Amino acid sequence: MNVYFDNAATTPLHKDVIFSMNENAINLFGNPSSTHSFGRKTRAAIESARKNIAKYLNVSPLEIIFTSCGTESNNMVLKMAVEKFAVQNIIISEIEHKCVLNTAEDICANSNVNLIVLEVNEKGHISLETLAKELEKAEGKSLVSIMHANNEIGTIADIEKIGVICKKYDALFHSDTVQTIAHYPFDLKALNIDYLSGSAHKFHGPKGIGFLYMKQSAKLKPMIHGGGQERSYRSGTENVLGILAMEKALNIAVENMDVWKNQITELKTYFKVRLQAEIEDIKFNGDQENNLYTILSVSFPSKFNTDMFLFSLDLKGIAVSGGSACASGANTGSHVLNAVKQPLDRTSVRFSFSHYNTKEEVDYVLEVLKGF
Amino acid sequence: MNVYFDNAATTPLHKDVIFSMNENAINLFGNPSSTHSFGRKTRAAIESARKNIAKYLNVSPLEIIFTSCGTESNNMVLKMAVEKFAVQNIIISEIEHKCVLNTAEDICANSNVNLIVLEVNEKGHISLETLAKELEKAEGKSLVSIMHANNEIGTIADIEKIGVICKKYDALFHSDTVQTIAHYPFDLKALNIDYLSGSAHKFHGPKGIGFLYMKQSAKLKPMIHGGGQERSYRSGTENVLGILAMEKALNIAVENMDVWKNQITELKTYFKVRLQAEIEDIKFNGDQENNLYTILSVSFPSKFNTDMFLFSLDLKGIAVSGGSACASGANTGSHVLNAVKQPLDRTSVRFSFSHYNTKEEVDYVLEVLKGF
Repeated sequence: MNVYFDNAATTPLHKDVIFSMNENAINLFGNPSSTHSFGRKTRAAIESARKNIAKYLNVSPLEIIFTSCGTESNNMVLKMAVEKFAVQNIIISEIEHKCVLNTAEDICANSNVNLIVLEVNEKGHISLETLAKELEKAEGKSLVSIMHANNEIGTIADIEKIGVICKKYDALFHSDTVQTIAHYPFDLKALNIDYLSGSAHKFHGPKGIGFLYMKQSAKLKPMIHGGGQERSYRSGTENVLGILAMEKALNIAVENMDVWKNQITELKTYFKVRLQAEIEDIKFNGDQENNLYTILSVSFPSKFNTDMFLFSLDLKGIAVSGGSACASGANTGSHVLNAVKQPLDRTSVRFSFSHYNTKEEVDYVLEVLKGF
Repeated sequence: MNVYFDNAATTPLHKDVIFSMNENAINLFGNPSSTHSFGRKTRAAIESARKNIAKYLNVSPLEIIFTSCGTESNNMVLKMAVEKFAVQNIIISEIEHKCVLNTAEDICANSNVNLIVLEVNEKGHISLETLAKELEKAEGKSLVSIMHANNEIGTIADIEKIGVICKKYDALFHSDTVQTIAHYPFDLKALNIDYLSGSAHKFHGPKGIGFLYMKQSAKLKPMIHGGGQERSYRSGTENVLGILAMEKALNIAVENMDVWKNQITELKTYFKVRLQAEIEDIKFNGDQENNLYTILSVSFPSKFNTDMFLFSLDLKGIAVSGGSACASGANTGSHVLNAVKQPLDRTSVRFSFSHYNTKEEVDYVLEVLKGF
């Protein structure tokens, strides 16, 4: 049996997304910058996609730009906010994704910008008081980058409250929302958030396409220069098939959001209950009250702590991850698990689900786990 | 009749590319960074693609990294060469693509790097003597960026000789080869070239995927930081479908290179001969001896010089371009046509071909042109 429980790393494409990509690949090849009929047809399609994505976030289409991935979006925010707004302080949490963490480190290592890394508690939350204190004492403009849901342990940050604090201290606020876009509703009119990123392959779209929301009042400089695409914010011929596939995947996800959310939550709960009932000394990483419904980070007792654990699961056809997507299969050195102080004698596995997963798959995984 | 003569802007996808994208979309969704079976399968596929592209260029697979487009590749070279090798002088021609021109201008406007823009003659060639003189008098490290074939007028630069000059003065040499990759054979062992860029959508692959060749001895710093993909040179989950589609498109193009080249050259020659025979005072832009076989930039006499010309062609179903892809349909302000001193009373149209084009299409276009 093959079980794919690694949906936080990437998701299989939805069949309707594949079907529409195929149709567009045949019928829609013009360069959107061309003013002739072939180009105009493509231009109309991608502007309609922009409108749809903007509608989901309750923002203006002028605030959405297409990028090649969440990583590019996040890099652009950090690097270009420093250039555009003379940011003096970048404030992040210690459990940010590497594309925020490494980018912030690179910027600060090569400039006079201060890097302030906030610790998290054992559930994976920063202290809002500490954030406020840091902003209060910071000199010059600050950029706060706190991810919405952590990709390893699923803890969901209170981006509403963080937004209020950032506003109070006139700081820019960026949230890496790659794990939550298309999984939750967003109303950015109700949140004080300047930048937000999404990536299609986390919601049954293809890899290689993402977007960046930039609030009208916080527009950045381009990171990639050239022919002036994306109203000059991001040059390079648009990934037309990717953009339209992302729109399609988002539409499908939004349409099915409640159903899928309930289905996945039920599956996760079933897995949690049976794990605790049938395997001794099971714990869960991350805030279990405010947790991304697609992720279950399980902390196993020492007898599972062998180099062979993940490898054995793989041999049984079970695809899961030790750390993040970028380090699947490896348990050692997860900066997130270290930050939430996972004891060294325990081992953690991230199981992450989609609506394609079934109780039968959970049953199979439990049987395999019980065999250890 | 619909005639697509704008293949330098972008090309229709080859049907086998569409077919294989579709297959891969169904069967190959793992994150290549995942170490489980789903991930390993994808990893193997993209490493095989890298090997194939490297083989075409006669370089090591370790010298190829995947990017989101030619524009990103070119941005990365210019920006990161400055950071990595403390480049003090960027030397380009005045007819580079905007993604080189604007990037170089942005770098130099925000740093102490000197921008040296070489003029071109009326055929679109820089003076090799001037290049050598500039390199001789330049202080500190220089980066030379000269495109292989110009995207508006098709003039092919002598990158072999330019490479020799760059080597003599220990300058880095980058060539934007977006218009020539998959259209000509490349043997980089025989050329002194440090960086070269390619984009799939110029050879019947999809938009949103490109690559960068970086010589082993001239490896750059990353422009996009994160999870360490592409051996840390370019983070972000790989565009798996795009990479494999680019490989497929390249393989097909290489296999059919001679046949397609002959077919397109014959078509272009037929068009040229008939244009000159049947329309008065026709001229061609660019070096007609050393010209990209897919491009024909036609200079029309003053009676064609109306705002309505390109629009009228579009109404007749003929897709062509006035300037570059990024400004199709607009004649005014092409920096390339200005540089080669197109008289103000003439108007230029770029016709660009692929193996899908036919003599019947040329005949139709000629009939329409004769009606003006």
